[in-house]
Amino acid sequence: MGSRSDREALLAANQAFYDAFDAGDLDALEALWAEGEGVACIHPGWPALHGREAVIGSWRTIFASGGAPDSIRCAAPVPFVSGDLGFVVCNEELDDGLLVATNVFRRQDGVWRLLHHQAGSAPPPVTRPGETVH
Amino acid sequence: MGSRSDREALLAANQAFYDAFDAGDLDALEALWAEGEGVACIHPGWPALHGREAVIGSWRTIFASGGAPDSIRCAAPVPFVSGDLGFVVCNEELDDGLLVATNVFRRQDGVWRLLHHQAGSAPPPVTRPGETVH
Repeated sequence: MGSRSDREALLAANQAFYDAFDAGDLDALEALWAEGEGVACIHPGWPALHGREAVIGSWRTIFASGGAPDSIRCAAPVPFVSGDLGFVVCNEELDDGLLVATNVFRRQDGVWRLLHHQAGSAPPPVTRPGETVH
Repeated sequence: MGSRSDREALLAANQAFYDAFDAGDLDALEALWAEGEGVACIHPGWPALHGREAVIGSWRTIFASGGAPDSIRCAAPVPFVSGDLGFVVCNEELDDGLLVATNVFRRQDGVWRLLHHQAGSAPPPVTRPGETVH
């Protein structure tokens, strides 16, 4: 959904997020997050954080505490765009595991910026539906 | 973001999802999910599922296998709407734990329908930022 160029721009913004994350570049990450209402973030095992200040603060804490993974790569991103809102569902490949994520973006002044991020653990590639509770 | 009535309609759709989930009502749940592109779902610990067929099938499996929680209640929902796309960040209270979730909705023919759901485990209310990786 969305035009091809919209989806490509959304995927580029999503990749920029992972490039900044992988580099541990807080300034780049901060610039990628949206301004205003709706900013939220759910790190794996964390409660939901709401508001830009809380979200940026969480990234600062993660980078400062050495809590970030050594490396992170985005894989299998699937984009969806409608108007000035869009989201990407993707995998996050770490050196020692796999996460799955939802990244919601809002277009502000023509630029896709991150509005919400949720990441959580995923099983190894071989899945067994029905064995896992909800 | 979004008008007050838009946000209220989005929250009502989000609540309808949890009502159907709590009741184990597959027919109601199926009717709540959107048609067309962009349908996706990440159950806790599962890989990302893409497409309406895979997503509805996963709910069928969960209900049939007894994998659904005994009860589930939505708490602290925060909505955001832009045009015909919106999302809700909320808690999911189970009898024996807490999850956090992102629910993305698309308005089709004036009705908000679920496009994407991700749920993952959350810590107890007392959080310790910096102790959890990413």
